[in-house]
Amino acid sequence: MVKSLGNKVQTPIVLVNFKTYVEGTGKNAVKLAKICEKVSQETKVCVGVAPQAVDIAPICSAVSIPVFAQHIDPAGPGGFTGHVLPEAVREAGAVGTLINHSEMRLKLADIDANIARARENQLISVVCSNNASVSAAIAALNPNMVAVEPPELIGTGISVSKAKPEVVSGTADVVRRVNREVTILCGAGITTGEDVAKALELGTEGVLVASGIVKAKDPYHVLLDFAQNIRQ
Amino acid sequence: MVKSLGNKVQTPIVLVNFKTYVEGTGKNAVKLAKICEKVSQETKVCVGVAPQAVDIAPICSAVSIPVFAQHIDPAGPGGFTGHVLPEAVREAGAVGTLINHSEMRLKLADIDANIARARENQLISVVCSNNASVSAAIAALNPNMVAVEPPELIGTGISVSKAKPEVVSGTADVVRRVNREVTILCGAGITTGEDVAKALELGTEGVLVASGIVKAKDPYHVLLDFAQNIRQ
Amino acid sequence: MVKSLGNKVQTPIVLVNFKTYVEGTGKNAVKLAKICEKVSQETKVCVGVAPQAVDIAPICSAVSIPVFAQHIDPAGPGGFTGHVLPEAVREAGAVGTLINHSEMRLKLADIDANIARARENQLISVVCSNNASVSAAIAALNPNMVAVEPPELIGTGISVSKAKPEVVSGTADVVRRVNREVTILCGAGITTGEDVAKALELGTEGVLVASGIVKAKDPYHVLLDFAQNIRQ
Amino acid sequence: MVKSLGNKVQTPIVLVNFKTYVEGTGKNAVKLAKICEKVSQETKVCVGVAPQAVDIAPICSAVSIPVFAQHIDPAGPGGFTGHVLPEAVREAGAVGTLINHSEMRLKLADIDANIARARENQLISVVCSNNASVSAAIAALNPNMVAVEPPELIGTGISVSKAKPEVVSGTADVVRRVNREVTILCGAGITTGEDVAKALELGTEGVLVASGIVKAKDPYHVLLDFAQNIRQ
Repeated sequence: MVKSLGNKVQTPIVLVNFKTYVEGTGKNAVKLAKICEKVSQETKVCVGVAPQAVDIAPICSAVSIPVFAQHIDPAGPGGFTGHVLPEAVREAGAVGTLINHSEMRLKLADIDANIARARENQLISVVCSNNASVSAAIAALNPNMVAVEPPELIGTGISVSKAKPEVVSGTADVVRRVNREVTILCGAGITTGEDVAKALELGTEGVLVASGIVKAKDPYHVLLDFAQNIRQ
Repeated sequence: MVKSLGNKVQTPIVLVNFKTYVEGTGKNAVKLAKICEKVSQETKVCVGVAPQAVDIAPICSAVSIPVFAQHIDPAGPGGFTGHVLPEAVREAGAVGTLINHSEMRLKLADIDANIARARENQLISVVCSNNASVSAAIAALNPNMVAVEPPELIGTGISVSKAKPEVVSGTADVVRRVNREVTILCGAGITTGEDVAKALELGTEGVLVASGIVKAKDPYHVLLDFAQNIRQ
Repeated sequence: MVKSLGNKVQTPIVLVNFKTYVEGTGKNAVKLAKICEKVSQETKVCVGVAPQAVDIAPICSAVSIPVFAQHIDPAGPGGFTGHVLPEAVREAGAVGTLINHSEMRLKLADIDANIARARENQLISVVCSNNASVSAAIAALNPNMVAVEPPELIGTGISVSKAKPEVVSGTADVVRRVNREVTILCGAGITTGEDVAKALELGTEGVLVASGIVKAKDPYHVLLDFAQNIRQ
Repeated sequence: MVKSLGNKVQTPIVLVNFKTYVEGTGKNAVKLAKICEKVSQETKVCVGVAPQAVDIAPICSAVSIPVFAQHIDPAGPGGFTGHVLPEAVREAGAVGTLINHSEMRLKLADIDANIARARENQLISVVCSNNASVSAAIAALNPNMVAVEPPELIGTGISVSKAKPEVVSGTADVVRRVNREVTILCGAGITTGEDVAKALELGTEGVLVASGIVKAKDPYHVLLDFAQNIRQ
């Protein structure tokens, strides 16, 4: 079932986090975003990209798929040197943002503030969590999406949906109990279409992926495999 | 005496920090950068701008004056979601970066690592400090510039060069004793050309300014006044 | 209705946070803890104290009322210089700990880990929150208590129970919906017995108080007033 | 040459950091401190101990050797829940404090403030660094001691004085150039008296040690070996 969240974003979704990988930085980032756009156009599956703050504007100029920031700061406009302002992210063309990624963990009060600041700027909030109970806590804060990623599997190629299915289904259970409006993603170690299919079986509506696509020898074919498995 | 630091940067310099002010975000940021460029061209004084990470690429496309990041993270390429990679900043066209601004204070070991990472990416490092002894500590880390800004004066319109001249001249003294290669700036509350002239008299080679320009009713004329006073 | 949480702790409770006030440090802290003990013995109301880490052991030797740490770190035993180990807190005689006080905000994943570490060490976890939605998020993590304190009222003498009753009753509502096992406290600006009575009316089972007692001219009589109002 | 720093502290010194090791927590910490005292009395070598904040008071009651905190916060007395107040550390009987240990890295401005706060409370400041240039920066802040510890060797049993002698002698050189008043220690991987002797040869006036003593099967004999080698 396809669900629209506005801002060109619908589920099921493959959300590709470029992190600070060389393959996802600068000109490489634009090239990779175009590959993601091609797969999205060919398969009609929603593919989003989350590049570094510096690369948001060039990528938004180059592609029409949804672009997410990797992080925003809760601070408002004003004297906050070095912070990532949601207003700036929005004006550059992004439609959403990751919040609290395991490589950018935030204070609880800042996650709450960030979700409100994202909403205020029409940015879709995708809040990352490390386990089922933290996912439930996040759901209580009413974000658009929660993405559960056991940190010990991130970047390993060992898929959360196969290695820790109980974390994924447990998250789906508790999040639905706390807040039925929240879209559930999972991530960590996802490298094949089969991992993606399994994630959806466990009750999610998409995947958050990074090295599995960004560091793949042939990102186009791996992402195509993901998209074909998510479409069913 | 004009000193070249490479990367189009020379001293004396006026470095304008856009912070996260509305007037320094998105389209406003590009417009403001063009005003800075105009003053620089008319006066032959080096004017640099430090916009938010998201706005670096659009500004580097729009102007030819030196652009600085407001912050970089020491992390290398890899799995560092939400971090600001020096490589990305450089590829977007920036020539330098602020480090350790009072609104983005860093751990000492990260300042040291950031200076090395900036150098590795041919970025000019401008490290902020809050007093003379911290300025001396920073000078020992061998950055390109140290910018002393008493935090209690930032954004007040009460100029450091007039209200706390001893902090500025004290910084100049101790920094020169520790490391003669380091360029010295000062900032906080600078709003008139006279404040700028006084800063140079006290032994600095330029100023770091934010609200004094960014929030000015007529940034062009205020900056022109700065540049005319820095030139003499 | 009196509810026992074990470890000599029961509700309704007055929990006195000594912060780093001079009046709550060192010998003064021991003296203040004895006043708290006196009021507790005279009124049969549970009064807990939360001194600085350094003062836990001397206070546990001096009084028999429940002693709480102000903070613990999630790190386990090992190489964690400067961290507050739950095992050490427990061995010194404390029976519980504050977590995520507004002056010591923690990352969400660390709050989750801290609650587990507290439980593992038989420490009662009192997790602080800044509003109703954050309180609900905390309740999902299954601590023993949640204490809601709007940061803007802390230390003001303007009582949360009078100035923002909707935050207190709203917290009570959402916390009960998420997790009926969690004890609810409120704090910020509580200075009179009437403030305490009002807090209980709004659905809490006690108060977290600091300056209202610690900086009072006559802590004994203020606390007595609190206890007499909580008893009814 | 024996140099007195006041507060019962003199160099050469062996400073034993108990971290959060089980063997250095609670009753074990008191026992270990007594072993350190015994070695100090037998050899006339200054041995200091740095237990967790919670254990400072009991250890100060039990032994007469100098006790150091593992960390202090720069915050003054007031509303700073969970912070470690220098005043409290001093009143509990400590004579000094570690600052900026690699497991508790601080912002540069906070290191500067901490050194001032330590001095204000007659606490000897021992500031940790990760390399020679950071050591020079710290020396510019005028602490009592700087302790250089390459983080990659901490806890390995591979001695800094043997594996990276150039870091130790390089630190000694640059620190002396910046500030001749600062006492220089080194640490990381020190497990034998020979490692200690080598550290002194390289220009230090003592060692900072943790697992080499705390996790030793027979801490008394290992520490005795250290002390005998430091005396010459």
